[in-house]
Amino acid sequence: MAGRHGGDNVGSSGAASAEESRGLRKVDLHASISDPVLDSMTFLNEVTLRYPEAISFAPGRPYDGFFDTEEIFGHIRRYLDHLIDRGGSPQQIRTAMYQYGTTAGQIREIIADSLRVDENIDVPAESIVVTVGAQEAMLLVLRALITGPDDVLLVSSPCYVGITGAALLLDIALAPVEEPESGFSCAVLEAVILEERARGRRPRAFYVVPDHSNPSGMTIGPQARAELLELAERYDLLILEDSPYRLVSPGSPLPTLKSLDRAGTVVHLGSYSKTVFPGARVGFVIADQRIVDDQGRTSLLADELSKIKSMVTVNTSSLSQAVVAGTLLGVDGRISELNAKAASYYGDAMQCTLRQLEQHLPADHRAALGVRWNRPTGGFFLTMQVSFRTDDAALTRSAQDFGVIWTPMKYFYPLGGGDHGLRLSISYLTPDEIEQGVARLANFIEAETRRHGDRLGPPDAGVSGEA
Amino acid sequence: MAGRHGGDNVGSSGAASAEESRGLRKVDLHASISDPVLDSMTFLNEVTLRYPEAISFAPGRPYDGFFDTEEIFGHIRRYLDHLIDRGGSPQQIRTAMYQYGTTAGQIREIIADSLRVDENIDVPAESIVVTVGAQEAMLLVLRALITGPDDVLLVSSPCYVGITGAALLLDIALAPVEEPESGFSCAVLEAVILEERARGRRPRAFYVVPDHSNPSGMTIGPQARAELLELAERYDLLILEDSPYRLVSPGSPLPTLKSLDRAGTVVHLGSYSKTVFPGARVGFVIADQRIVDDQGRTSLLADELSKIKSMVTVNTSSLSQAVVAGTLLGVDGRISELNAKAASYYGDAMQCTLRQLEQHLPADHRAALGVRWNRPTGGFFLTMQVSFRTDDAALTRSAQDFGVIWTPMKYFYPLGGGDHGLRLSISYLTPDEIEQGVARLANFIEAETRRHGDRLGPPDAGVSGEA
Repeated sequence: MAGRHGGDNVGSSGAASAEESRGLRKVDLHASISDPVLDSMTFLNEVTLRYPEAISFAPGRPYDGFFDTEEIFGHIRRYLDHLIDRGGSPQQIRTAMYQYGTTAGQIREIIADSLRVDENIDVPAESIVVTVGAQEAMLLVLRALITGPDDVLLVSSPCYVGITGAALLLDIALAPVEEPESGFSCAVLEAVILEERARGRRPRAFYVVPDHSNPSGMTIGPQARAELLELAERYDLLILEDSPYRLVSPGSPLPTLKSLDRAGTVVHLGSYSKTVFPGARVGFVIADQRIVDDQGRTSLLADELSKIKSMVTVNTSSLSQAVVAGTLLGVDGRISELNAKAASYYGDAMQCTLRQLEQHLPADHRAALGVRWNRPTGGFFLTMQVSFRTDDAALTRSAQDFGVIWTPMKYFYPLGGGDHGLRLSISYLTPDEIEQGVARLANFIEAETRRHGDRLGPPDAGVSGEA
Repeated sequence: MAGRHGGDNVGSSGAASAEESRGLRKVDLHASISDPVLDSMTFLNEVTLRYPEAISFAPGRPYDGFFDTEEIFGHIRRYLDHLIDRGGSPQQIRTAMYQYGTTAGQIREIIADSLRVDENIDVPAESIVVTVGAQEAMLLVLRALITGPDDVLLVSSPCYVGITGAALLLDIALAPVEEPESGFSCAVLEAVILEERARGRRPRAFYVVPDHSNPSGMTIGPQARAELLELAERYDLLILEDSPYRLVSPGSPLPTLKSLDRAGTVVHLGSYSKTVFPGARVGFVIADQRIVDDQGRTSLLADELSKIKSMVTVNTSSLSQAVVAGTLLGVDGRISELNAKAASYYGDAMQCTLRQLEQHLPADHRAALGVRWNRPTGGFFLTMQVSFRTDDAALTRSAQDFGVIWTPMKYFYPLGGGDHGLRLSISYLTPDEIEQGVARLANFIEAETRRHGDRLGPPDAGVSGEA
């Protein structure tokens, strides 16, 4: 048996120091740990640390200038006052704060109220499970829906790494649904469904970010939303809707898929990490689908997700729930109002980035370089296509020689692709940094294009202007 | 293809109301959801709700009378002051509180300091990963270590449901290591290891609660600890040490396995849920094992666990980390000191329960009834053997006719067993409740024994007095 030991060190107990311990072999650990997706992220972090002076368009973290440490206390206090107003005794409030809470969460009513006023989503509190960020919600939903190797998860491609990661952990098969230049296509999704069925696999769910997607920045239009819902119902497919950027984007967002859902095909993954408090790690899932067991008894999918949650985190931090609930109570559930300034800030950053790109890479220049990018109206990300390979070596040259960092798009294609794409995040930079960063990026692109011989032909497809 | 739909409702999109949605079939969800372990817990909760007047020895939750809601603010403030003392600017502190933090956690130094002063465990902060309770730590460790169906997790049997649950989620094979009357036995463990190897499976790790175990209440003695460590090293087995009750028990605890570990065989799972703040959901794992990849590069197991955590919860709530760190800083890391009153409270509750049992079921009486129990010196639980089946029907009769609730031991045997055992938790009851509860329990046992015909023969083995 291959193992940690070089040999059988019988009787050596107590003799070896911790320093001398032989180490486990990485190949003896679960495959998810060695997956390229994770190694890519590690590489990106290393580059960022190695070149601290570089301007980084890589991190998708929210700008935190609108947050105030002292307000944390006020938000928690507001939630405690809310419990008092609802007749909670000091003992009950102590229990609510200190004890293990219900697995599904203790602020579900407040979340349900907020969804009604802000998102036109009207669901009972019982259909909500509060999670440790949307990441845990993904894990719970995937675990519930995927029963074995014959089930497959469809993912928009390119795709957020969080869903790919959760699938890796659970050894879940993925089928990519390529996003065409023009944005999401029902025809492509239908083709993948039929292909997977023909292979004998059961497409269980389709993961999609309909608004200002991470990483592509694309938004699904109203007509395509209706078609997607119809397709999902027809093919017995659940839609996993994840939309963390809609309330931190300027303008009125399109209706969520969940608010349009009449057939119970949409499971909505919610996040407060961009809108309320990233570090608190509070998200939720709306799972109002009915589950029927073999004796005809029914439950909600949310009930079943709670069971899984009891094996993952037991419950979500009461303190984190308190601070999020207190914040929601302070604006009567209107997260959109709370984020009006942030949405305008991000919108300006996006416009600033697009303006700078236009200035440094005007039409004829970018045509000559074989460069193009899309023009999202919101969200944190835009994507760019270039004529050279945007691999780790290119990223290192970009950081080292030009002082600018971006994310290779191939990180977002778990099954290959994105070799000539890069993602720019605009969420964490000042206008000055954006201006300087784009100038550096343009210089890098020019040099890199020259490096590979002038103009290597048109870049591959997969990105375009957003409707 | 079997699916959610009764038929192919092509074109019905928008017509069906949410009420009319057909529901998913439970058999189409992952098997973990329908596992008897989870259904048992659901049943127990239902019984508890249905008989609110019953005295319940079921919940393992800590007593919260020592907690004070207002102190939450002080603990967070103390952590913020600590960051200021270490030179943190307001911006840095805002970022530390509000932003996504490092996946491995931001209070690892404080935890490492506490482990040094309180547990004689001296590990670098880098070998610690802060988790959403010990539950997430279990999931991370199992996911890292178990690569597929040929790997097997050994668990002490009876066993805490949290580890069984995490294994279920990940489709991990379990092999029970029966706990004899006299407590943990290396001989039994070794036999299971050899048996599993003979079956072609690789025993990867052994999960054990060495101090006042949940559910049995048993503690592993000093000699057996040394033997266990030697055995683990010899058979290339990791020990997953979980010991949430040691610092809330009276007297000086035995050294942890981790503090005795010289060969790097112990992964220690830590929890602040019994000692500091249950609802905050903060635990940790010490994973200082070295990992070697196929190019000879090394990392710590903690690094690999962080990668997995990035796919489960991304990071642990900064607010929860702050309140735990603030509490630890307030007592210079001495959790034992912080819990001196609680430990004495639980110790008194255990002694009170044992006295009441002795009084209501004196030696000759209990011999006639075929009843016995163990006598833990700490922890939250003791176990009892009776002559009748302690199944769900018996539990319902106990709650309905006698007003007393307990936990059937069979819930803690994932692969069968415990049919005549019951677990009593002493952590959440007042002395008066214990007195009345034990009286009711004795009445139930007498009636139940009569019901099955006087004295049905000796109960099965598996529990005894604790050394």
